[in-house]
Amino acid sequence: MDPKCSSSSSFRNLMIKASGFITLLTDFGLSDAYVGMMKGVIAQINSKATVIDLCHQVNPQEIKEAAFLLASSYSFFPPGTIHVAVVDPTVGGQRKPICLQAGAFYFIGPDNGVLSIASSRAGIKEMRVLESETFFLKTVSRTFHGRDIFAPAAAHLSAGADFNSVGPKVRSIKRISLPTPQVRSGFIKGSILYRDRFGNLISNIAPETIAKAFPDPKYNRLLISIGGRSIRGLSRAYYEVPTGSTIALFSSYGFLEIAVRDGNAADMLQVGKGASIVVEAAGRGRR
Amino acid sequence: MDPKCSSSSSFRNLMIKASGFITLLTDFGLSDAYVGMMKGVIAQINSKATVIDLCHQVNPQEIKEAAFLLASSYSFFPPGTIHVAVVDPTVGGQRKPICLQAGAFYFIGPDNGVLSIASSRAGIKEMRVLESETFFLKTVSRTFHGRDIFAPAAAHLSAGADFNSVGPKVRSIKRISLPTPQVRSGFIKGSILYRDRFGNLISNIAPETIAKAFPDPKYNRLLISIGGRSIRGLSRAYYEVPTGSTIALFSSYGFLEIAVRDGNAADMLQVGKGASIVVEAAGRGRR
Amino acid sequence: MDPKCSSSSSFRNLMIKASGFITLLTDFGLSDAYVGMMKGVIAQINSKATVIDLCHQVNPQEIKEAAFLLASSYSFFPPGTIHVAVVDPTVGGQRKPICLQAGAFYFIGPDNGVLSIASSRAGIKEMRVLESETFFLKTVSRTFHGRDIFAPAAAHLSAGADFNSVGPKVRSIKRISLPTPQVRSGFIKGSILYRDRFGNLISNIAPETIAKAFPDPKYNRLLISIGGRSIRGLSRAYYEVPTGSTIALFSSYGFLEIAVRDGNAADMLQVGKGASIVVEAAGRGRR
Repeated sequence: MDPKCSSSSSFRNLMIKASGFITLLTDFGLSDAYVGMMKGVIAQINSKATVIDLCHQVNPQEIKEAAFLLASSYSFFPPGTIHVAVVDPTVGGQRKPICLQAGAFYFIGPDNGVLSIASSRAGIKEMRVLESETFFLKTVSRTFHGRDIFAPAAAHLSAGADFNSVGPKVRSIKRISLPTPQVRSGFIKGSILYRDRFGNLISNIAPETIAKAFPDPKYNRLLISIGGRSIRGLSRAYYEVPTGSTIALFSSYGFLEIAVRDGNAADMLQVGKGASIVVEAAGRGRR
Repeated sequence: MDPKCSSSSSFRNLMIKASGFITLLTDFGLSDAYVGMMKGVIAQINSKATVIDLCHQVNPQEIKEAAFLLASSYSFFPPGTIHVAVVDPTVGGQRKPICLQAGAFYFIGPDNGVLSIASSRAGIKEMRVLESETFFLKTVSRTFHGRDIFAPAAAHLSAGADFNSVGPKVRSIKRISLPTPQVRSGFIKGSILYRDRFGNLISNIAPETIAKAFPDPKYNRLLISIGGRSIRGLSRAYYEVPTGSTIALFSSYGFLEIAVRDGNAADMLQVGKGASIVVEAAGRGRR
Repeated sequence: MDPKCSSSSSFRNLMIKASGFITLLTDFGLSDAYVGMMKGVIAQINSKATVIDLCHQVNPQEIKEAAFLLASSYSFFPPGTIHVAVVDPTVGGQRKPICLQAGAFYFIGPDNGVLSIASSRAGIKEMRVLESETFFLKTVSRTFHGRDIFAPAAAHLSAGADFNSVGPKVRSIKRISLPTPQVRSGFIKGSILYRDRFGNLISNIAPETIAKAFPDPKYNRLLISIGGRSIRGLSRAYYEVPTGSTIALFSSYGFLEIAVRDGNAADMLQVGKGASIVVEAAGRGRR
């Protein structure tokens, strides 16, 4: 660092240097040109930005699903990445566009909770309303802030625009939360947060939750019940059971997951998002 | 500009400087490797080009749908962007591959109308047949000009190849048009051009069309009829009506759109592309 | 080349210089954030890498389908491209992660056959187990080697890491093969390898196979039978038959393909992957 700048160094250390990477997470799908338009707008403002699609097939208007995906993914990107999430059923209404510094990242999106889980996990440093029109397209519609506000703001930030100039600080944002499991000694009742492309069912039960309820971690003695079916023991990889068998393991998302080897657990168990999942100690016998 | 070049400056000013951005719009879908191959070909010719997917899920062989998406999107990209559109049911036949300069952009694709609406809106400057084999892959198939002609031509142009050398000028190209609404004082009969991922129904009725038929713009007095249902008044944003309600508003595409708040208008109204939509003045009463 | 290095030049000539391009081929789909996470990991390691999606919609766990797509596509990319293929039903098990030099390319993926057809066609130069943890993410899961092993290894290689240091050489890898047609003079019995987005049916019958069975290439005298229907003669482009007609031609993949002009052959013939296709000489009459 230039020593002449040292007087402001403590302030500067708080700032995140934009990496030039921007991720996009939306419910726009890929059958329209909406995502392409957002990328065009970014390219116009910062031709050197690299845009990475996180996912565009969030179910329409499913803020929680997007919040879960963002919270599961944001940390795999370079420090200084700007994460843009646009699942925005009340676009054009009272909800504010916001821009957050959290951990090593920026988060941009509507203030409807979609950013709240990821930014909390990352550690929020500062929250601002995205208000300065220099960060917007010249004409802002009331129906497509992804193109007219969020994409251009991300592009300007990625090109080095000052975070402090996006708009005034706010002290709180709308927060949503994922359901938390009930835990007591020897018993956990959780729920399914997400179903992935393979039909794998991802629950809200973290390894720490298991460790808390079952301090003596004899994993093969656990009994996991879901959709009227019971699975004995936790596995570590899909291949450990025969093709077609149901399996419980900690997934790529970091939570307890129910899967079927080379198959589709959601279809086979007829279970989806919101379903209950119970973890107990397997008894000596089943009566 | 180098003053030594000033003698040719007037000519040069007519030329569009390629930005390095190439967009792709196709009906190839994403379940095959066709789009990936096109990007590989581009990378081989110009490793610095940036390729942006506009959309690849145009319904197979639907030239008009692609033309609509291109016309709605092209202007959001940087000047000098090369827009490639490949919806090409007569690939390998008599239709020519063409390359156009229009507005600040290049357009590349088959001469079947897919480029005609966007390039007309942008303002056509010059039209050429894509004929010079130096712009093609070494082996050109009769089934995949996207990979063998259009992608390599875009890559060469993006790397600075001379537009004048792609092939001879042509005086006309095949033109298609979107249906235009019937308009008289106090009455518009339009049609649905497009259904997006959310089931929003985008019509061919522009704000100017409304202004022409209803010079006194008391928007809330309009009655919009579609699929046996009537909507009173124009809204400005989706959130203005309760969840599940039908709404009419000017959409991200710039046309009158029928939507259902947090729902799917196409499914709910059982209406799709080509359906009629009527705008009238709402009477004092409905009998 | 620096003459001071000439003593090692023969060795160096064996090495492929990474181009900075990485392709991804998976069965992860686009409705989750799995592919996005892989790209984030690559960006963290080599911010200058360019990632190109080959395809992510391989049917879950369909190793052969991925192997076919990779073999059909790899050669369209710049020399030095690193092709990553992750269709990996036994992730976390005994199958090794491997890294191959073949032709002008690198291939990275699980040793389950997914790389074998493409790398054989390209010409395998050297095969190594991907074992050095410096090429992995710090924490490696047992469920997502795409993110934790294959993406980071590709990123390190693309940034110039030494191929020789990925792990020890191996003398063989698991090989799979596509079904080969039965051929005798005047008769070929092949099968459908792949159905594309358009419903086109791609067989395993290459031009060379036709030339072998029918040394006198009067293509219009051939009779192609599939799904209870017969097609007379080979065409060269889709437009040569009327809309709705069935057609046989050599496709973008280089094999004999059955298509329906502006239609869907798979749906119309009720035929899919694995179906038989027979090529015979058309008799003077059909009785």
